[in-house]
Amino acid sequence: MARPNDRLTKIPEMTIRRLSVYTRCLLLLEEDGVQTISSQELAERFNLNSAQVRKDLAYFGEFGVRGIGYYVAGLKAELQRILGLDHEWPVALVGLGNLGAALFHYKGFSRQGFRVAVVFDDDPAKIGRAIDGVPIVSTVDVAREVKERSLQIAVLAVPAEAAQTVTDQLVAAGIKAILNFAPARLKVSKDVRLKNVDLSIELETLSFYLAQAAR
Amino acid sequence: MARPNDRLTKIPEMTIRRLSVYTRCLLLLEEDGVQTISSQELAERFNLNSAQVRKDLAYFGEFGVRGIGYYVAGLKAELQRILGLDHEWPVALVGLGNLGAALFHYKGFSRQGFRVAVVFDDDPAKIGRAIDGVPIVSTVDVAREVKERSLQIAVLAVPAEAAQTVTDQLVAAGIKAILNFAPARLKVSKDVRLKNVDLSIELETLSFYLAQAAR
Repeated sequence: MARPNDRLTKIPEMTIRRLSVYTRCLLLLEEDGVQTISSQELAERFNLNSAQVRKDLAYFGEFGVRGIGYYVAGLKAELQRILGLDHEWPVALVGLGNLGAALFHYKGFSRQGFRVAVVFDDDPAKIGRAIDGVPIVSTVDVAREVKERSLQIAVLAVPAEAAQTVTDQLVAAGIKAILNFAPARLKVSKDVRLKNVDLSIELETLSFYLAQAAR
Repeated sequence: MARPNDRLTKIPEMTIRRLSVYTRCLLLLEEDGVQTISSQELAERFNLNSAQVRKDLAYFGEFGVRGIGYYVAGLKAELQRILGLDHEWPVALVGLGNLGAALFHYKGFSRQGFRVAVVFDDDPAKIGRAIDGVPIVSTVDVAREVKERSLQIAVLAVPAEAAQTVTDQLVAAGIKAILNFAPARLKVSKDVRLKNVDLSIELETLSFYLAQAAR
């Protein structure tokens, strides 16, 4: 018998990323008052690949209507549901240095329904305080906070050398998904989703094009 | 006649991103003293797809040696050259708020050869000062600084409402590639490479898996 997640593991992560991009495009179309759109028009308008759009959506069902295309509002709502964006996710932010503070104020997170519910930091000058009403708590209390707040997602913005220790604490406390900004290779058990963000990769795609153009 | 960049535009951006990933893998192998590796071993060790590795590399030449595989140090050096990482890139960092400060201290950039040469900020309390020896300059002086320092790459960490204005200044001054962290849709001329970083997309791939697992 197939396990419930077997189907999911076959969906390429790039497809999931593109669903996020499509959702943003549909939001913009909705703002512009567009009610229906074909995959070709969608692709042209946002520089996408229409065959790719159809293939990505086909993993999740039949969304197009012959002779009409996609209903913008309907498809957007459907993709948001698929991405888990139809409700709010309370998030633990770990580390309130420059990057942590930047991520705390990052509007993109809250716009998509990710709300920082608690901040963990081990600076005695910060513990017990609050930032915009969100409590700053010592990592000693990770287990209690994760349980009380039913947290499943953590965003890691700690120095590399502290990353594995706090990850182990988070996982032991029940965190199921970690977005890691620390430049460290973390180990987590198989049932935990770990996503490493490496900001220098983005710069390297740019230097590639500059280097090639110079040749 | 084909323009020199025509071949480049056919290389998928995901291939370029993966070259960055392969380079990191090869660096780790080199640290571990591994001298040669097959595409299969490389794929197994780093959770890659061996057919994809071969296809990606084939865009740039023939790197494997029959019966041996890849020479780790040689392939690493070759990929670094292709990615433009065989020399240092001076970079302009625009905006020294929380995110800008975090990016300034982000070790991943300097490790890959991206060195912040100048910081632009319009806060009078910051202008004229320096951070770790790097001058903080008003955006009024963008044209002069970009020219004097032969800058081609800018990293944008300004508020959304300031992003387009400063982008226009950077492009007019001769910047050829922009890594944009501001949540704004920027317009640039066709000869400028613009890469938008949307950190919430990373969180959405996590919420997707959590949402699906809960169903």
